[in-house]
Amino acid sequence: MISVEEALEKLLSNVDVLAKEEVAILDSLGQVLADDIYSDVDVPPLDNSAMDGYAVQSSDTLGAGPHSPRLLHVIDTVAAGSISESEVTAGIAVRIMTGAPVPKGADTVIRFEDTDEVSRREISGGQTITEIGILCEAEVGLNIRRAGEDISRGSRILAAGTVIRPAEVGVLASLGRSQVTVISRPVVAILSTGDELVEVGQPLPAGKIYNSNSYSVAALVRRYGAVPRMLGIALDSEDSLVTALRRGLDADMLITSGGVSVGDYDVVKDVLAKEGEIGFWTVRMKPGKPLAFGTIRGSDRRGVPRRIPHLGLPGNPVSSMVTFEVFARPAVFKMMGKKDWTKPTVEAVLEDGIVNTGGRRVFTRAVVEKREGRYFARLTGPQGSGVLTSMSQANGLAIVPEDWAEARPGDIVKVMMLDWNEEVI
Amino acid sequence: MISVEEALEKLLSNVDVLAKEEVAILDSLGQVLADDIYSDVDVPPLDNSAMDGYAVQSSDTLGAGPHSPRLLHVIDTVAAGSISESEVTAGIAVRIMTGAPVPKGADTVIRFEDTDEVSRREISGGQTITEIGILCEAEVGLNIRRAGEDISRGSRILAAGTVIRPAEVGVLASLGRSQVTVISRPVVAILSTGDELVEVGQPLPAGKIYNSNSYSVAALVRRYGAVPRMLGIALDSEDSLVTALRRGLDADMLITSGGVSVGDYDVVKDVLAKEGEIGFWTVRMKPGKPLAFGTIRGSDRRGVPRRIPHLGLPGNPVSSMVTFEVFARPAVFKMMGKKDWTKPTVEAVLEDGIVNTGGRRVFTRAVVEKREGRYFARLTGPQGSGVLTSMSQANGLAIVPEDWAEARPGDIVKVMMLDWNEEVI
Repeated sequence: MISVEEALEKLLSNVDVLAKEEVAILDSLGQVLADDIYSDVDVPPLDNSAMDGYAVQSSDTLGAGPHSPRLLHVIDTVAAGSISESEVTAGIAVRIMTGAPVPKGADTVIRFEDTDEVSRREISGGQTITEIGILCEAEVGLNIRRAGEDISRGSRILAAGTVIRPAEVGVLASLGRSQVTVISRPVVAILSTGDELVEVGQPLPAGKIYNSNSYSVAALVRRYGAVPRMLGIALDSEDSLVTALRRGLDADMLITSGGVSVGDYDVVKDVLAKEGEIGFWTVRMKPGKPLAFGTIRGSDRRGVPRRIPHLGLPGNPVSSMVTFEVFARPAVFKMMGKKDWTKPTVEAVLEDGIVNTGGRRVFTRAVVEKREGRYFARLTGPQGSGVLTSMSQANGLAIVPEDWAEARPGDIVKVMMLDWNEEVI
Repeated sequence: MISVEEALEKLLSNVDVLAKEEVAILDSLGQVLADDIYSDVDVPPLDNSAMDGYAVQSSDTLGAGPHSPRLLHVIDTVAAGSISESEVTAGIAVRIMTGAPVPKGADTVIRFEDTDEVSRREISGGQTITEIGILCEAEVGLNIRRAGEDISRGSRILAAGTVIRPAEVGVLASLGRSQVTVISRPVVAILSTGDELVEVGQPLPAGKIYNSNSYSVAALVRRYGAVPRMLGIALDSEDSLVTALRRGLDADMLITSGGVSVGDYDVVKDVLAKEGEIGFWTVRMKPGKPLAFGTIRGSDRRGVPRRIPHLGLPGNPVSSMVTFEVFARPAVFKMMGKKDWTKPTVEAVLEDGIVNTGGRRVFTRAVVEKREGRYFARLTGPQGSGVLTSMSQANGLAIVPEDWAEARPGDIVKVMMLDWNEEVI
């Protein structure tokens, strides 16, 4: 048996960051920037007004106050998106809207509230105002956003390796970019194996069960930003398995479930040995001890031969989800170019006991709650690895280290959070 | 001015949970179950083996041990997906694979490791084994998964209102469901207003800026599970705005940015007054003081008249993102049927000072780090609401309450986390 860390290291050493692709900025959410982004533009492009008001020379406001207005001649109005041809000189004001470029000669903007705008407009009856009273002193630069204040032309705005979130989408748009070059989303081919499996939506013959692993794994693949490709179900025969596998050999990764333990009908490992190279078989963890990793001979999207990483998850529904989180998620993240593939983890007070007979690292489905500033973790109930509903009840996996024979109520353990249920925090 | 809470309450009182829809289970991720889910099946359907081994009667194992094998006659082999016609009686064993139904008469399963399977198979040279030595005692039920252990027929498996995650997708598949009835994803129509705006990918004339708000807002809409519909840019004229708005009137919500402050060219509020009802205008928060909410006369997807909620965000890029998080996100979540729309929030030690001159709730872009078990928050730098790059640098919004004139370095403040950057936790 090898440790979780050794297994993960072996797996990741066989997984590469994928090639770049160009996508629409809105579709890049969650992907990783492939290149540094430099700006071709200043944002804002010109000095502009942060308020609706009057662009003036600050020297014209000296001595202005609520009861001592400084009267200025209004020669123009400028709105956002327009440029005033007028020049502001001593005694002159230009009426200016938020976002409009500051006219030549002006060095400050007095907002409407600090002028007699409102009373003058009432008196004028909607006619253009030709004179305005300034009611406060204003220093140079007041209410002016400087050209390039947010983004200056030629500077690096986003670094390669940045994960794109809504703010980055906005920043790319502000640079005028409609497309962005990112690391591709991995296509993950997913195959369940077992004569006992029936596809969802079909009648269920006696002794058979529905194929749930393909769906829980595909949902995890999608959740972490990759693209699932469903290969369906393969029977426990080499022919069926090879036929199914070959349909996935232009994917970026292949994930199978089932067929990796020691039973007679576990053909995945035999096929792997023929079609590629076998990695490891048993990991010092529970659930998930029988686990396969290797590479299979395939080809890329243009038909060029290459080796495709293959991860063989256990067939038990819980085991396959837990081993996905521990192994497949980091592999998917590495392919996507992400640098960090840790899961949020908290230290929690255990409320139930957990026995660890096999000297393995035990991942136990738990419900984590925060009470009075501390985290508490209780088990979801029966921990059989067929009990998928327990994964639905859990929001975390409480971890008992390999060298603990048991964890008792009151012990502090690490819990890998499956979901940040918002009320937990 | 009204408080953030009053504004949110008014908004949510005008927003309804959307209608149900049926979708493929894999596409339901992040949606909310519309109905309780009851099971038509037992999972597992029959008592079955948790191990590869031999199905026997436990009474036949009494006295068995490593040096005192109990010899049983092997009459059949059963694999997962098959049903053995054989009956296990005293002195009889059936070889059984993991997941295979336990044959009639057997009440326990002895795994291969606790039999002399390996040495017998070596001796037999691949021939069928007709006798097996049991090397340990086994109680009734050992290594047997009971029918209905995970899911029992007729019981409620998932409750209406459950948010669908990968585990729920797996549970639905294990019930044989290919489709599920969920609350619809809201379609959110998005419109930016302003003569100064230019669409991304186009040349940028002097004095103009790129439309970034549509993209940052659309990315937020998508991130929270709804469907953005881009209406583009409307000029600051009533005609242009009305024309654009009408293209979005069969959406579930309309979000505009810009046009809500007091300037001459702010026509959104005038149009709203004509086309529907106006909600509020100013909220006691910074950024985001100018904010509009109302309803507009539109029609549903079948053309039936109805009122569509309209949220008018400020035009500043940062303000529009912050007000989206505070107001639009809860509205989207309510439409999706989610019960909880709080964001993860931590208490952090402030490392910079924040002045609060206006008696408003200040949301300040911050970088949160965890050091020695405590959270620390420093500001991203200039807090002008045009500085969108600061949203890209931030992972949280530090909150200064309305009744604080300032927050000083060392003060403890709440920080609404924008992203759980995994390393923060």
